[in-house]
Amino acid sequence: MSQLNETHDPSLKSWVASANQPDSGFPLQNLPYAAFRRRGAQEATRPGVAIGDQILDLAALAALRPFEGAAADALAACTGERLNALMALDRIHWSALRLALSRALREGSPLQARLEALLVPQADAEYVTPAHIGDYTDFYISVHHATAIGRQFRPDNPLLPNYKWVPIGYHGRASSIGVAQQFPRPVGQQRPAAEGEAPQFGPCKRLDYELELGVFIGQGNAQGERVALADADDHVFGLCILNDWSARDIQGWEYQPLGPFLSKNFASTISPWVVTMEALEPFRTAWVRAEGEPQPLPYLDSPQVRAEGAYDLRMEVLMTTEQSRAQNTPPAKLSGSNFRDAYWNIAQLVAHHTVNGCNLQPGDMLGTGTLSGPKPDEAGSMLELSDGGKTPLSLPWGEQRTFLQDGDQIIIRAECSKPGYPRIGFGECVGTVLPAR
Amino acid sequence: MSQLNETHDPSLKSWVASANQPDSGFPLQNLPYAAFRRRGAQEATRPGVAIGDQILDLAALAALRPFEGAAADALAACTGERLNALMALDRIHWSALRLALSRALREGSPLQARLEALLVPQADAEYVTPAHIGDYTDFYISVHHATAIGRQFRPDNPLLPNYKWVPIGYHGRASSIGVAQQFPRPVGQQRPAAEGEAPQFGPCKRLDYELELGVFIGQGNAQGERVALADADDHVFGLCILNDWSARDIQGWEYQPLGPFLSKNFASTISPWVVTMEALEPFRTAWVRAEGEPQPLPYLDSPQVRAEGAYDLRMEVLMTTEQSRAQNTPPAKLSGSNFRDAYWNIAQLVAHHTVNGCNLQPGDMLGTGTLSGPKPDEAGSMLELSDGGKTPLSLPWGEQRTFLQDGDQIIIRAECSKPGYPRIGFGECVGTVLPAR
Repeated sequence: MSQLNETHDPSLKSWVASANQPDSGFPLQNLPYAAFRRRGAQEATRPGVAIGDQILDLAALAALRPFEGAAADALAACTGERLNALMALDRIHWSALRLALSRALREGSPLQARLEALLVPQADAEYVTPAHIGDYTDFYISVHHATAIGRQFRPDNPLLPNYKWVPIGYHGRASSIGVAQQFPRPVGQQRPAAEGEAPQFGPCKRLDYELELGVFIGQGNAQGERVALADADDHVFGLCILNDWSARDIQGWEYQPLGPFLSKNFASTISPWVVTMEALEPFRTAWVRAEGEPQPLPYLDSPQVRAEGAYDLRMEVLMTTEQSRAQNTPPAKLSGSNFRDAYWNIAQLVAHHTVNGCNLQPGDMLGTGTLSGPKPDEAGSMLELSDGGKTPLSLPWGEQRTFLQDGDQIIIRAECSKPGYPRIGFGECVGTVLPAR
Repeated sequence: MSQLNETHDPSLKSWVASANQPDSGFPLQNLPYAAFRRRGAQEATRPGVAIGDQILDLAALAALRPFEGAAADALAACTGERLNALMALDRIHWSALRLALSRALREGSPLQARLEALLVPQADAEYVTPAHIGDYTDFYISVHHATAIGRQFRPDNPLLPNYKWVPIGYHGRASSIGVAQQFPRPVGQQRPAAEGEAPQFGPCKRLDYELELGVFIGQGNAQGERVALADADDHVFGLCILNDWSARDIQGWEYQPLGPFLSKNFASTISPWVVTMEALEPFRTAWVRAEGEPQPLPYLDSPQVRAEGAYDLRMEVLMTTEQSRAQNTPPAKLSGSNFRDAYWNIAQLVAHHTVNGCNLQPGDMLGTGTLSGPKPDEAGSMLELSDGGKTPLSLPWGEQRTFLQDGDQIIIRAECSKPGYPRIGFGECVGTVLPAR
């Protein structure tokens, strides 16, 4: 059941003034984590927590030993290069650290003077992935996306019979996940121009983005032991934004029978900040199966999941191009959607992933799959927005796109907001396409 | 070109007498690596090298500083819990360490007295995976297997049009790879008994093994940079045996459109020993494309790969059951095949995996996919041997099997051998099926 506590009080203010701005995204009620260092500095990365436009250096904070009990233990897990050790703890520890940080950063905190020296402006920071990601699994939980993309690859048979029973997923590439990526356009094989000919080979001509969320696993499970749906929340640390870049022409040729491979594994960009599940508690919402949809198997269903298994979390995709940046034109919004429209929810992904005994480990990441909504302007990829490349998108500054061109930059933003509550932001997931090498 | 050196001299003998036995498998010419500790001891694992029935403790050896130059640098990389640091070096270092170890373990070595104290009997050791495996990719390089399994899942269309152009691969699960695994039979969704019904759910009824080899990546490549075919050997450290357990009924229901997932990721068992590519140099052989097969695209073809891209490496699959072990009956041989019959070779896998800029990292593992040969008794899975479960296999002690039952144990062995050269063994890959939880 939804667990609100002192840290969710919307009236709380921080002594870091920028956190109290209405549009901050990083108010005292959020407190997302990242792994950072000062830009260009020859120093190790370490965990930090965002407050307004600042980062509180948690490794430096740990040296002050400001907390006691579970919060102190959790803070002691924040001295490595990434957040894996914190993720490996449990919800009691995560929650204790959140409460201690909330109090320490609150107006009137006796720790203010000591903590001010530990702040690093976000403008001066650079980031790595929040965790060392051992395994990355990508799911496919938007039925709207599955139907639309299925229509491109299998016009006669867009939604396969397993879709409404199995939270379809597959393993992705962990090594090529990064933040703020700039990557060369991938090269590879594409379908032959005519049957019986050799495949085409060269730079991808149908390069796409995919609007997703990344789910960071906290506590793991032992191999052979499943995580029951009711326990799934104990194993989920937080969410980030994910852009699962996709080379559609490479994908169309390679993906049968074992799934996407080189069409995906050249790069996957995430936002540097992990917003904790506890920060998202006020935005839990009902997970709804529409009338006529099949009843999920028992291991994927419970009253609790139906009551609050989804999250009211809005995302939007923006784009800049070489031309728009040269003209200082603002980014163009391509689409937007809401996570609550997904066909499956996070707890179901964890229960399904482990039902066979597969072991999840702290810092593993689950991608949601492209989060397209039910409306045309809620499509989470260019393949959908351009109807498979047939209908170009017009950008406000006069350019057109069916797929991504060199120099194009995709920016994904996400937030949770509601009247009377400070906006919970995710920061930005930014990636740029460079020319093929 | 094949690079034989002093370490490949077949007349070399070791002062470890068991290494000189004709059937040792671990003669002085092999020198495979593992990560081990004394069984049951409260101690960290560390790298070791096999010699006869002993393990030379490389971490302890490093403390003696017995070598100089590149060999000393390589040995200094053998003090961690796994072999990743050694794998991250280059062929010059790997080769220098091999030569130094060959000389140190050779009859007459002045180091004998000091090294004798560093030997641990293999009978007293337990192992972990040789490397921390960051990413695991499984390929599908036996056209015989692809055709046979394709016939089971797609009777009308067994071999897809991309097969002879694309070294088909997909990402697997790294967290559940282990040595000497005993794992519960996986549970999961299976195809509905009749169209329109709910899927079946329960313990897998069609549990299978897959005979594969694992390829350990040595030096990695930067994201965005491809590894050319001619350079691929510089990035491959060695081979192990791999059993890619497969739940065929779960696979058949889940695998469209994104590939196998829960049908594979519950467990993957490897042999503890990594046989280096340098130890396998004498067994390089021609990689042959039969008459009428398509000409590979240029990034996958070269005269060198055709001349010696394959390896003459024999494997065999054996089985025991609860009954056979109770009766002390020897294992039954189920099948055997040779790696040289694969449709694609290791260098091609590396070149293909990186052609889009995907970054490989030291310790990553590539599976070959099931290595079935052209003859019926060379099939590398029960699905093939039992013709999709239709023709039970008769075991010598009177039992029959179509798929694996609880208590069944699969043992895979591999070796390279030829007249006049000591047998290069891989040890054993052993895994046992436990009842579902």
